[in-house]
Amino acid sequence: MKVIADLTVLPIGVGVSLSRYIAACEKVLQDAGLETRLHAYGTNIEGDWDDVFAAIKRCHEVLHQMGVPRVSCVIKAGTRIDRAQTMDDKVRSVEEKL
Amino acid sequence: MKVIADLTVLPIGVGVSLSRYIAACEKVLQDAGLETRLHAYGTNIEGDWDDVFAAIKRCHEVLHQMGVPRVSCVIKAGTRIDRAQTMDDKVRSVEEKL
Amino acid sequence: MKVIADLTVLPIGVGVSLSRYIAACEKVLQDAGLETRLHAYGTNIEGDWDDVFAAIKRCHEVLHQMGVPRVSCVIKAGTRIDRAQTMDDKVRSVEEKL
Amino acid sequence: MKVIADLTVLPIGVGVSLSRYIAACEKVLQDAGLETRLHAYGTNIEGDWDDVFAAIKRCHEVLHQMGVPRVSCVIKAGTRIDRAQTMDDKVRSVEEKL
Repeated sequence: MKVIADLTVLPIGVGVSLSRYIAACEKVLQDAGLETRLHAYGTNIEGDWDDVFAAIKRCHEVLHQMGVPRVSCVIKAGTRIDRAQTMDDKVRSVEEKL
Repeated sequence: MKVIADLTVLPIGVGVSLSRYIAACEKVLQDAGLETRLHAYGTNIEGDWDDVFAAIKRCHEVLHQMGVPRVSCVIKAGTRIDRAQTMDDKVRSVEEKL
Repeated sequence: MKVIADLTVLPIGVGVSLSRYIAACEKVLQDAGLETRLHAYGTNIEGDWDDVFAAIKRCHEVLHQMGVPRVSCVIKAGTRIDRAQTMDDKVRSVEEKL
Repeated sequence: MKVIADLTVLPIGVGVSLSRYIAACEKVLQDAGLETRLHAYGTNIEGDWDDVFAAIKRCHEVLHQMGVPRVSCVIKAGTRIDRAQTMDDKVRSVEEKL
């Protein structure tokens, strides 16, 4: 099952500067061979459901290994059976109507 | 890895009455043996990471089998390595301070 | 415009124990006269759009006054014009189908 | 109070093709003079808290005027008092560490 997802990771208990933890998660997603688009409040991810969610679990594990005591994430996940659609298709489809 | 999660499922393309689809997801979560608390905008879930996320994937699959063309969900997932904590602990901890 | 909302507040930069901050937000919501239901990953809120969102803004302001340097929140908000519905209606409507 | 937000709008009860509704919301945000970045699962928004949330309310109103019976949205909102930060700063700060 193909999924388009969006992931926001919030490391808790390590102060206010979170970018090095977010970068570590980006590397996890890239190492998993997933298609990603970083934005200012998370990362769009495209791939097979199992691959995407294995990588998200790995993000939690890696952050805990880096010493983060609590990790909270917000995931949006969209699946459809009516037709194939990529992340770029979704953006283009909106932009055409602007 | 233990997780406390929150799941909101949004079936798209099947009109405005969504409760029978939400109920189908509740049954998936219960059949998976997970601890759940239904609320007005989703469901709290407690369990092992792999069990929780396998059940969420199953919710998407079951809804598509019921004929829902598109399913979007929002998942919040929290893990911590500093101490054990249940869903009930979290609520009690806030209520004590009110 | 009536709204059913769900609010999760994440204070950042104040360590791992967040319940006193969550409790402060609960008090803000209650002082605003809003109907609320606390759960393990946030709070359901019911009320007029402007009242609900004024209270959410106030949560951010109060946490910053308590010394929290960064506050991130996740809000879900649902409005409908086809019929009136309360938070309790939503839960009951699902439970009837279980 | 300055906010960096992320908005995902889900029109319910109007079928599976949602891009014309998402485009209508983009126009509302642009007409409000807000800085925005469309992505595959929502839109990043930067601006004054009141302006951002007035525009989000307007999105719900405009969709209902277009005949959408139910609208659900997911908003993430981040405020900080330790230092000024733009959406582009956030992305750059992560990219530097990759």
